[in-house]
Amino acid sequence: MNSGMDRAWDGVIAPPIEGRLSKPRSTGITMVLDKGLGVTALHDLLETAADWVDFWKFTFGTSVMYPRTVLEAKVRLLHKHGVFACPGGTLFEVAWMQQRYDAYLNRLMQLGFGAIEISDGTYPLSLAERQEAIRKAKSLGLKVLSEVGKKDPGDSQPSSVLYDLLRSDFEAGVDYVIVEGRESGKGVGIYDAKGEIIEEDLGVLSQDPQCVERILWEAPLKSQQVALIKRFGCNVNLGNIPTEDLIALEALRTGLRGDTLRDVVRKRVAK
Amino acid sequence: MNSGMDRAWDGVIAPPIEGRLSKPRSTGITMVLDKGLGVTALHDLLETAADWVDFWKFTFGTSVMYPRTVLEAKVRLLHKHGVFACPGGTLFEVAWMQQRYDAYLNRLMQLGFGAIEISDGTYPLSLAERQEAIRKAKSLGLKVLSEVGKKDPGDSQPSSVLYDLLRSDFEAGVDYVIVEGRESGKGVGIYDAKGEIIEEDLGVLSQDPQCVERILWEAPLKSQQVALIKRFGCNVNLGNIPTEDLIALEALRTGLRGDTLRDVVRKRVAK
Amino acid sequence: MNSGMDRAWDGVIAPPIEGRLSKPRSTGITMVLDKGLGVTALHDLLETAADWVDFWKFTFGTSVMYPRTVLEAKVRLLHKHGVFACPGGTLFEVAWMQQRYDAYLNRLMQLGFGAIEISDGTYPLSLAERQEAIRKAKSLGLKVLSEVGKKDPGDSQPSSVLYDLLRSDFEAGVDYVIVEGRESGKGVGIYDAKGEIIEEDLGVLSQDPQCVERILWEAPLKSQQVALIKRFGCNVNLGNIPTEDLIALEALRTGLRGDTLRDVVRKRVAK
Repeated sequence: MNSGMDRAWDGVIAPPIEGRLSKPRSTGITMVLDKGLGVTALHDLLETAADWVDFWKFTFGTSVMYPRTVLEAKVRLLHKHGVFACPGGTLFEVAWMQQRYDAYLNRLMQLGFGAIEISDGTYPLSLAERQEAIRKAKSLGLKVLSEVGKKDPGDSQPSSVLYDLLRSDFEAGVDYVIVEGRESGKGVGIYDAKGEIIEEDLGVLSQDPQCVERILWEAPLKSQQVALIKRFGCNVNLGNIPTEDLIALEALRTGLRGDTLRDVVRKRVAK
Repeated sequence: MNSGMDRAWDGVIAPPIEGRLSKPRSTGITMVLDKGLGVTALHDLLETAADWVDFWKFTFGTSVMYPRTVLEAKVRLLHKHGVFACPGGTLFEVAWMQQRYDAYLNRLMQLGFGAIEISDGTYPLSLAERQEAIRKAKSLGLKVLSEVGKKDPGDSQPSSVLYDLLRSDFEAGVDYVIVEGRESGKGVGIYDAKGEIIEEDLGVLSQDPQCVERILWEAPLKSQQVALIKRFGCNVNLGNIPTEDLIALEALRTGLRGDTLRDVVRKRVAK
Repeated sequence: MNSGMDRAWDGVIAPPIEGRLSKPRSTGITMVLDKGLGVTALHDLLETAADWVDFWKFTFGTSVMYPRTVLEAKVRLLHKHGVFACPGGTLFEVAWMQQRYDAYLNRLMQLGFGAIEISDGTYPLSLAERQEAIRKAKSLGLKVLSEVGKKDPGDSQPSSVLYDLLRSDFEAGVDYVIVEGRESGKGVGIYDAKGEIIEEDLGVLSQDPQCVERILWEAPLKSQQVALIKRFGCNVNLGNIPTEDLIALEALRTGLRGDTLRDVVRKRVAK
């Protein structure tokens, strides 16, 4: 369950849900959504929770607002703790729209980011452009996360279209495909206006079990995290996790919170 | 109102609601719900707000995720500021389920926790088991908080059953009985699906005025805190307070926020 | 867009929405709602985001709860970063109710606050009292922010009454007039019970374009921030911004988040 570090309850409590993978892991990924933590707050959080996070998203264009020294300090801290730093997809979209993608990649490498998100949530990309963007990023050795899904409900696409795009992205070599959930988790992607999962859409996107291991579901709300853990197991890939919920999510994954412990209890009692 | 510390507005502003007790207090307890603050963040918060918090809950199984050194540093800081550290009730339930309660108590003492929560929110306990758990914890000198109420709406019990359990827990020697409210405050315990108080259930649980002084109502939402302060006064015991609301709650208790100031104003204007 | 500081993406990404003013600015103000950050957390946040905040509200009576040394340390930090510290309006109302306004002003100056909020959200003020309060604060060289609007829905006033008060406050010399939105942003001021803008009320309050530059809309919810930016431009004055949303708001103002980027994209695509 962990990276060999001495844990507070080792030898006393065993996680009720077994099989949680430790870092570095290729599935069971957690990606955080960071809206602007300071350097001290990041250091503080990583000291407690670095083992429970794999990717760190400086969400949408927030990284533009940082003093360069502050951003670089954060990226260094993340690297030191084995977490991939990644700018938000919207920043990629702006760079592409402004025809500055090469400059964007150069700066991203200079700043020390280890991952990139390629999306068309707001700015439309042709399939050829998308594949070019992915190819260039891959050639630099970056972890590449593409995203399917639109940010505005008025632009939404059928899940079958998203599925085709997802397949095509995997063929183009991306590491993970993100399914858009925004910060709100409502009225977007696989979620209805109340934030509940639309089963039919989830079914279409997850039809290929092999793909599921590399789909990263944005799931900002606890109810979504619970539902996806119950559906795909404790090593489902989850994104847009609020920084303050990082440890609580790990408790959900391992059955140390009522919502996921309950099924374990029921099976025991039924025996 | 405070522990003798020099406050910013001393001599200028008197709290509009009088009678708030200072620490150490046996009623007027505030219990925080901590989902994973780092050591620096905890230190920072206690420096500002230690006088306004009595119990600190490392909620559900989150403390399992901590490096032992980090958890111990947090517990020491809390002790230094006169705050009882307490693991979540779900962790007790897992330990009991795994038949590791003695080991759980030993480690809890080693780690420096000063309080324990004994609950059956997810894992069922017989009355005899419950009393055995309480007795063992009391014998170690721990503050014992038992909890009544189920986490899942599908398991909910009538308030008369909860009231009988509450009485029985007091007879068994617990310091406080917590009424379950979860982190959400919705569809659980005395709260309906919108988080509003179900008056009938509140009435049943609070029928004995002497008990009320040792009932700790989980009340994560501001509307719930306001309603309970109006009902039981500024020294009502409140739990599951988000760490970032600790100071705001104290303002509510003392009439320094519109929601509770309003009644004071109305009485003055009516004179 | 910034104060000359070296930014992470300078020379690569241009803000899609142009014209955002840098500090010190008289319009395009952001006011934060602080419920009790510690000194370290404040330092950490200002190091990242000081350029994006103009006024810092120690909301309602929270500043009463601070040890004096902690409050003074926070106020000094804010001053150093060019941010005006301001107690909440409710604290003014309590001081006025307790007939301690002169003492309140003295202490406020001693503590180093640079701004004051004058409101009648809970405690009623006559027009003469309001103008006296404004005049005294102005004579001390404070930035004066008055507020229109009641905190309790049961006390609400027609927008035409609020508009007359707003005009009168500007004539009395206030720097900004705040339109009440509370922390929740629901069922108060220009917002309905769901937090959506009531267009008619917004229209009445914003009928004079010159006034709008000095109206500060409390807008705690993202949807409100988006709507007001779309309506009045990137330099609209916004208040009650949660501290953790400070950088995200600046991304909204400059088109670096999908919600406001979308209109830029549509205009480009339409060309």
